[in-house]
Amino acid sequence: MLTLYSYWRSTTSYRVRVALNLKGLSYETVPVDLVAGAQRAPDYVVRNPSKGVPTLVLEDGTALTQSLAILDYLDHVAPDPALLPEDPLLRARVLAAGQVIALDIHPVNNLKVVSRLKSEHGLSADQGTEWMRHWMTEGFHAYQALLPDGPTYSFSDTPLLCDICLVAQLYNAHRWGVDMTPFARLLEIEKQALTLPAFDAARPENQPDAT
Amino acid sequence: MLTLYSYWRSTTSYRVRVALNLKGLSYETVPVDLVAGAQRAPDYVVRNPSKGVPTLVLEDGTALTQSLAILDYLDHVAPDPALLPEDPLLRARVLAAGQVIALDIHPVNNLKVVSRLKSEHGLSADQGTEWMRHWMTEGFHAYQALLPDGPTYSFSDTPLLCDICLVAQLYNAHRWGVDMTPFARLLEIEKQALTLPAFDAARPENQPDAT
Repeated sequence: MLTLYSYWRSTTSYRVRVALNLKGLSYETVPVDLVAGAQRAPDYVVRNPSKGVPTLVLEDGTALTQSLAILDYLDHVAPDPALLPEDPLLRARVLAAGQVIALDIHPVNNLKVVSRLKSEHGLSADQGTEWMRHWMTEGFHAYQALLPDGPTYSFSDTPLLCDICLVAQLYNAHRWGVDMTPFARLLEIEKQALTLPAFDAARPENQPDAT
Repeated sequence: MLTLYSYWRSTTSYRVRVALNLKGLSYETVPVDLVAGAQRAPDYVVRNPSKGVPTLVLEDGTALTQSLAILDYLDHVAPDPALLPEDPLLRARVLAAGQVIALDIHPVNNLKVVSRLKSEHGLSADQGTEWMRHWMTEGFHAYQALLPDGPTYSFSDTPLLCDICLVAQLYNAHRWGVDMTPFARLLEIEKQALTLPAFDAARPENQPDAT
């Protein structure tokens, strides 16, 4: 059995939950309470020196870190359904779109980053929220500009890596009140994805540690 | 001929330059002056809606964005030498280490992020430097903890994707005066990599727009 160290509201954990579900891989969830600092406990840091979630622990005890690396691993060991297309050029487009979310938005809005802005640089709660909204808005504009017309999901009629990153990030966008008026296409993708059991079961509110 | 839109000090551009050089792919450099805001020019944004560098334009005019997606593309169309191992588990480790640099460090220290901290939230130049040093120090500790003993580079005796990310980030670490005392292993990898012509030619100071 796979073990996923995860936090319900973590969008990177959400990505891995969706991928595991899409591929039909069962796993046990071990909650890591980021707000309480459980990610900094010494026995956790041995598995994940970045002091974050998710960590996927394989049956033999091997710990894998970084959500995109975990998705790549799952795509190699459980290739059906594929999270990335075979054609190198389309693959590069799907990866680039996913990275708009995973690199341009998520790290800058990460809990530890926003917490440091507040604790070390005096940002108020409202300024922290505005900070997050800014990077999401910028990133969603870039993401939407990369999309072709036509497919149900971003590049295809089945969800791929970039759709997983997008849907997880949209949870945060709603949570923090991003004005989604310019992003109708992204909301359509989200709506479609959340009809799939693999996405629905992975939603933050459906996790054992949701409060 | 490939065309690389790049900025000499951009560590993400540096990654792509190294990969192109390692694979023996010749390219023309078109400098994008990030400090002057050239990445926001409308005709550039059409190619790169994230308003960043690098952008790799193929012979047919197709524009590829996001450095890690570009590296993945190059590894598919020009597989020798490979930037990622074939074994899925080792591949996941190399990707995870690369992503410690590319996700945990780089985006948080990106020019546009640090500029916003200064312009919108009043951080001084010294506070901006301290911000960058903090995330680099945290990330380098995590990176170093992931490494096995033995190989010349991070995981192997030839440089892989994570080594490319590391060496580019170390340029920034030196530039911003990170205390490298705890990171002797990383400096050894850097020293070895920079003996290779592919890395040396890609160094910021060897670019046409270096000042």
